[in-house]
Order: sequence, then structure tokens, then C-alpha cells
Amino acid sequence: MKVVKFGGSSLASGNNVDKALNIIKSDPDRKIIVVSAPGKRNAADIKVTDLLITYAYTSLRSNNYDNIANKIFKRYELIAQYFDLPEKELAEIKRLLFALPKLDYPNADYRMATFKAHGERLNAMLTAKILQHQGIKARFLEPKDVGLIVTGTPNNAEVNPETYINLKRIQLQTDERIIFPGFYGITPSGHIATFSRGGSDITGAILARGFNVDLYENFTDVDAIFSANPSIIDHPKPIKKMTYQEMRELSYAGFSVFHDEALIPAIQGEIPVNVKNTNAPEKPGTLIVPEDNFVPQRTITGIAGGKNFAALYLRKYMLNKGSGFTLKLMEIFNKHHVSYEHMPSGIDDLTIIFKKDALSDQLIDVICNEIQTSLNPDQMQWIDDYAITMVVGEGMKDKLTLCASILYPLGKKNISIQMINQGASQISIMIGTRRQDEEAVIKTIYDNFNA
Amino acid sequence: MKVVKFGGSSLASGNNVDKALNIIKSDPDRKIIVVSAPGKRNAADIKVTDLLITYAYTSLRSNNYDNIANKIFKRYELIAQYFDLPEKELAEIKRLLFALPKLDYPNADYRMATFKAHGERLNAMLTAKILQHQGIKARFLEPKDVGLIVTGTPNNAEVNPETYINLKRIQLQTDERIIFPGFYGITPSGHIATFSRGGSDITGAILARGFNVDLYENFTDVDAIFSANPSIIDHPKPIKKMTYQEMRELSYAGFSVFHDEALIPAIQGEIPVNVKNTNAPEKPGTLIVPEDNFVPQRTITGIAGGKNFAALYLRKYMLNKGSGFTLKLMEIFNKHHVSYEHMPSGIDDLTIIFKKDALSDQLIDVICNEIQTSLNPDQMQWIDDYAITMVVGEGMKDKLTLCASILYPLGKKNISIQMINQGASQISIMIGTRRQDEEAVIKTIYDNFNA
Repeated sequence: MKVVKFGGSSLASGNNVDKALNIIKSDPDRKIIVVSAPGKRNAADIKVTDLLITYAYTSLRSNNYDNIANKIFKRYELIAQYFDLPEKELAEIKRLLFALPKLDYPNADYRMATFKAHGERLNAMLTAKILQHQGIKARFLEPKDVGLIVTGTPNNAEVNPETYINLKRIQLQTDERIIFPGFYGITPSGHIATFSRGGSDITGAILARGFNVDLYENFTDVDAIFSANPSIIDHPKPIKKMTYQEMRELSYAGFSVFHDEALIPAIQGEIPVNVKNTNAPEKPGTLIVPEDNFVPQRTITGIAGGKNFAALYLRKYMLNKGSGFTLKLMEIFNKHHVSYEHMPSGIDDLTIIFKKDALSDQLIDVICNEIQTSLNPDQMQWIDDYAITMVVGEGMKDKLTLCASILYPLGKKNISIQMINQGASQISIMIGTRRQDEEAVIKTIYDNFNA
Repeated sequence: MKVVKFGGSSLASGNNVDKALNIIKSDPDRKIIVVSAPGKRNAADIKVTDLLITYAYTSLRSNNYDNIANKIFKRYELIAQYFDLPEKELAEIKRLLFALPKLDYPNADYRMATFKAHGERLNAMLTAKILQHQGIKARFLEPKDVGLIVTGTPNNAEVNPETYINLKRIQLQTDERIIFPGFYGITPSGHIATFSRGGSDITGAILARGFNVDLYENFTDVDAIFSANPSIIDHPKPIKKMTYQEMRELSYAGFSVFHDEALIPAIQGEIPVNVKNTNAPEKPGTLIVPEDNFVPQRTITGIAGGKNFAALYLRKYMLNKGSGFTLKLMEIFNKHHVSYEHMPSGIDDLTIIFKKDALSDQLIDVICNEIQTSLNPDQMQWIDDYAITMVVGEGMKDKLTLCASILYPLGKKNISIQMINQGASQISIMIGTRRQDEEAVIKTIYDNFNA
């Protein structure tokens, strides 16, 4: 049995949905189908999730929201018409969509989560109806039906382990397909809460683990995961096979093909993940597997780069005499719900690296002021243009001169390195530079290792 | 005006004290003399400070402590006899020494601090008397006379900034020498508290800053600070001149010539420090100067290695989602008064590096148990044999290929590198290895760079 997940671009139009349905129908093992909300049909198009966010805001301000609601409904209607689905089959979808502003919500965050989740919810309902219309036994199931329980903040929820106990109890009929909406779960009190953006990958992984399937197929719009970003490297090599850990390290710094958090349930359930292309399902894609018995084909599997980092440099004599300095720092971060990424330290200094999207300019000011007041550093500097490049490969283990071989050509190109972090895992090297150097870092390493 | 500090080995015997006094007398600028307690006269000898610790314990258990007190007094008496000092001049020293068990102390820690401090206190008194006996105008001054105020724990105190205001008020006569005991200060309530072991260097630096002298001469038993440990490298090069920051980074990992904390007051007062040999005062020694206008003579100034580190490896998926993980960790460390040195992190893991002397086996167990309970890591490992090597040099700045050139030969020698930390200061590279590899690391880097 397989879990198959389709991304938004794979379900953006009737034509795309048809390709997805053919993929499902071509393999009886593809029993559990996780769908995203319809994505962009072209570069100028707007994703249904973004339309729903606009809908949520518009309907808060006035009762004059028919325009945006109709625009959303039209997306589903167009797909239905492609399959000659009778209009009456859409009545329930329309009713649910237009009822959203009238429901009761615990607060504004839950309201937003519910609006957003309907992109997936309605798409899963529609997909089930299309399959049924085509004479295929299909059943719509959603988080409340199976007990996919989440906790945490309404728009950045986390799966609750109870989910896996609940999923074990679900009986599946041998000849039916389950169509399941991605991206959201229900809280213990029954409200909808979503994962972070792109979270349908997470739903697929949770179901893959919960139903203990043989394979989790993740269909997207690229042939494979590439060894480097194709917008930086011309025709980078596709990665045929890699380990969970390699994928974790690569997703960290910008490999956006597969959601950062989605790998965890797959790892925990030891479910192999196959990233494939909806438009070319015959291609092998990228297979992500457990570490056991993995034989690396190359030294470097991939190079990922993330430009959206910032760093705070603090200098104070004897700062590591006593654990108090870092404790106070963490208390300040925790108070403002700020998470940091890394904290390399020298003898009398400390650099704290953040993901930029977690920090507004205002928050940076507040944090810097509090640090100045309570820690009184001798020097404090905010570095706004920090980039992190990850060089990853199971084949890097025990290659003791590799780090030097990676760094030398960067030095030759006058790239100034702010941080080097050879992970304890020994399968990656993290390189911190200024943002403007990041593409040169990736190109130089790629060219030297033909990664 | 100069502050001159003599270490314990420079004052261990009458013969040594004579050399020290000749150094003082040869330069009228050497006005403020900071003395340590008499050190070892030979490898089998016991330092007076260690005798005083034994005295403190012995006198706690019984009134039968004359033996150890006499043994200590004998050390001062022998020095006095070398200079034909009349026996009556020692009466005060003997009285103070034998009175120690009878004084009132706030607690056992203050008692220990007071016992230990008398090694320096009595030696400064004796030295002043010898100079006076030789017809030289000399005055014994101690922390309570000048307001050298300390705060913190009784045996690991820190200077209070008020000290510098107090020192500004002290009037020195032009033709007198001040003999001042190192190692201790007085608390705001008038009790003796000591710096950490070897803290006479700190006293010298405080006086150098407080009296705003031209030079702080630190006399010890080596010709200079060497670019590497002479027990690992045959005849390493002496360092003629280096910056404060270079010295800070080198002392961190085991350059024990000059006390780690002693540089701070010198830096704050911008007082140059000259480390010299009591037995060869004509040699230039090592001059430690501010960074401004410093022109490095070589790429690498020195290589220091510290074997006494340990590391705790923690692995948990998504550990950096939220600042809570590190905060809880810091709360545990703070609760047990444990300070950490560095905390390099990967995507899902964290290594915390400690100085071993700060941790007993029992404390390690307690901390690991608390981490297991409150943070529930997926993996936790204690690495007991961690070593840190520091490669330091102002000349390393802007040498962008240097890090690669340092690492490559280490890889060739099959040395596995656990951590690389290129400091934000850009004048040092920190290399973490297993303890057994540390000497090979130092040798390899030294040989390659002829440091």
C-alpha cells in the first residue's frame, strides 16, 4: 500500500487533475491520496490558499465578500466541468465555502486556519466526487474522521502522537481509494488548525506512518530533487537516492521541494519517500531511504543555500564564565517567541544566527535593546545579510581532507567565510557567508566536486 | 612608572628573591611590586599556598597544627636568613600566621580564602622588610589599605570597579617602592577573598590599570611565551610581540604562562604587558600590546592546546523549532552552577563543550538525568576525551585560504575533526578533536607553518 500526495501545481487545473487521477488509477497500491489546494495555473495566477486568506480578511471587514468567494468557487467549478461533473455535485462545496464567515471561531487565528484549510478540504471532496463519477470507489476522509489530532498554535500546529493510535484503528476496504485533504488537523477540542505553509507534505507523511505503508509517493512538478538549485547551476544532476538525514540537512537551507518537517514521521515510521513528477510519472524521481545499508554513489549528494539568515554578534570579556549570559539571552528570545538557529562562539564573543522570516525590524530593535540593558555587551552588531550553505553527503563521512578541499577554492575566490560548522553527524558542512557571496559558494563547490 | 609582578617560582628561595630584588633596584620606574607566595624550590617541593591549604584543613580538625604552621613559617624564615634579617623582624609574620585558626570567619569558604591569601600577604610583608633592611624605602600596602574591593565567591572573586576609583586617590611618594600581595582583595564587608588560583597576575593587572602605569612587567621562570608548548614542540619560537586578543585566545586553551583573567584590566587600561624571566631579565621576553597599529610578523603567532574538555552530544528532531530547548538546557546548567564553553549545532543536534575541571562525575550524572527527563532527546552521548586546539594570529586575518591549509594536512594524517570554529574575530581557528589526537594536531600545524 502507498500514500500518494499531490502538490498544488499538480492539481491546479482539470488537465493537471486528470494526470494525477491517471497516476492513481495506474497502480492499485495507490490507495491513500493526499491532496493540496489548487495551485497556480500560470506564473500570473493566484493560489487558492492565497485567495482564501484574502477571503478571510475581506469577510472580516464587510459582508460584501461574494466576489472573492465566487472567485474561489470558480476554481473548483472549472475542474469539475473538465470532468463533466454534474453541477449539483458541487452544492455541498459551495455551501461550505460561503458559510465560512458565518461560523463561530475561538479566535482570529483559528478563523484564519479554518479558511486556509478549506483549500485542501474542498479539493479532497471534489477529487473524491470526480473519481466516483468515473466509477471508481473513492471515499473522502478528513482529520476529524480518522483522529488526526494536532496541538500548538492554530497556524503552525504539530501532530499529536495520539494520531498514530487513532490511525491504527481505521479500517480500509480493499477496493476503495481514500481521498484525504492535506495541511490541517483537528485540535483536541475539535477545531481546525493548520501546519505551516506547504504542510500537505506533512499530512502525507503522517498517514504514511500511521497506516504503515510501503512507500510514500510525493508528486510535484519537478523530475527529481536536484543536487543544487537549478536557478544557480545549469542542469544540476538529479539525486536518484539519498538518506533521510541527507534530505533533512538539505531542506534546512532552502531545498524547498519537500517540506522540512514532513520527513520526521517518515523517519519515525521508516517509510521510504519517493519524490516524483506528476507530468512525468514514468521517471524514477528521487528516493529517500533509511540510513541502514545505504551505499553513497558520490562524495557530495547536494549543495543547498539559504539566503534568509541574519546574525547578531555579541562581544563581552569572560562571557562564558558562568552560564548566566546564555541563559539571559535565551530568556529574552523565549519571551519574544524567537527561535535561533545556531550560536557559534569564540573566546569572548558569540554569534547568534536567525532565520530572517522569524524577525521583524521592530522585534530586532526590541531584542537588541533588551540585550543591551540586561547583558551590557562590550560590542553588539546586527548582520542583516547572512547566508548559509549546506554541503551534504553520506559519502563525506571519513573523507578527512574534504573540508579543506571545499574551503580552499572559496578562499582562492576571495570569499570571506563567517562560520564553518562541521556537524557532529559528519555528513554535512555548514558554511556561513555574506549574502552576496552565496551563489559563488554554491557554484565553486559544485564545479570543484561535479556534485 | 611600572608595576612589576613576581611569580611564586621567582620568590621560592632567598637566592631567587635576591634576583627579584636586583631587578627591582636596577630600574627606579619599578615602583609597584606585586608578590606571589613562595613557590617550589625544586620538583619535590610544596608551594606555600598548598601548605596553607593543608594548614586550614588540619586546624579545623584539631588544635594540633603547630607542625604545619612551623613548616610554613620556616619558608619565610629561610628567606629572611638569606638576607641576614634580624629574627625580631619576623615576629609579626609569625604572630599572624599562628593566629589564623583563631580568627572569626563568616563561613568555611572565607576561612579557606584567608588562609590561602596569607601566602602572598606574609611574603609581601617580608619583602618590604628585606628592602628596608637593605636601606631602600619600601612600604607594604595591601588590598584593605588601597581599597582593592572584590565581589563574588570567596575563592573565585572578581574585582569590583569601585577599586579603580579608590586607587586613583592613593598618593605614592616619589622615592618609595610599594610591596603589594597578589591573589586577594577585600569584600565590601572587609573579609579576604581570593581570585582563582594563580590570581597574582590579576592583582598586578588591576594595579597597573588603577595607577595607569606605562608598563606591567610580569616576571616568571621562562624567557618568553613560546609559539607552542615546549613539551610538545622542540624549541618552539619565542613570541616577541603579540596583541591582547592573541594572548586571550592562546590562554584559553592552555597557555598557562599568564592568567586567563589577568589580561582584562590591562586591556581596559591599555597597559602593555611584558612577560619576562627573573633568571634572565636582560632578555626582551614577550610584549603584549593593544591591537592598534600592530603589524603581525608571521601568519600564525601561536598554537595552544587544551586537553581538559568534555562534550555532551544531544540529538532531537526539530530541536531549534522554538527557543525552548536551549533555554531549558541553560536553566539546568545554571541551577547546578555549570558553565559551558561552546555549543556548536547541526540541523537536529547540539554539542555542548565543557571544561572538565568544572564537572565531577556525579554532577555529569545529575545533569544528564535532568536533560533526559525534561528534554527527552532522541540521542544523548557524553564524550569524555575532548581536546581543543587554538591556532591564533593577527596575521591570519584576510588569509582566506588559511583554514583550508591548516585542515588539509590534518586530514592527510587521519585526524578526525569533531569541530571547526572560525571565530568572528578572524584571528583564530578553534579545532575540536579527540584527546589522543591533540599533540599530533599541534605538531602538524607547527611543522606546516613553522609557526
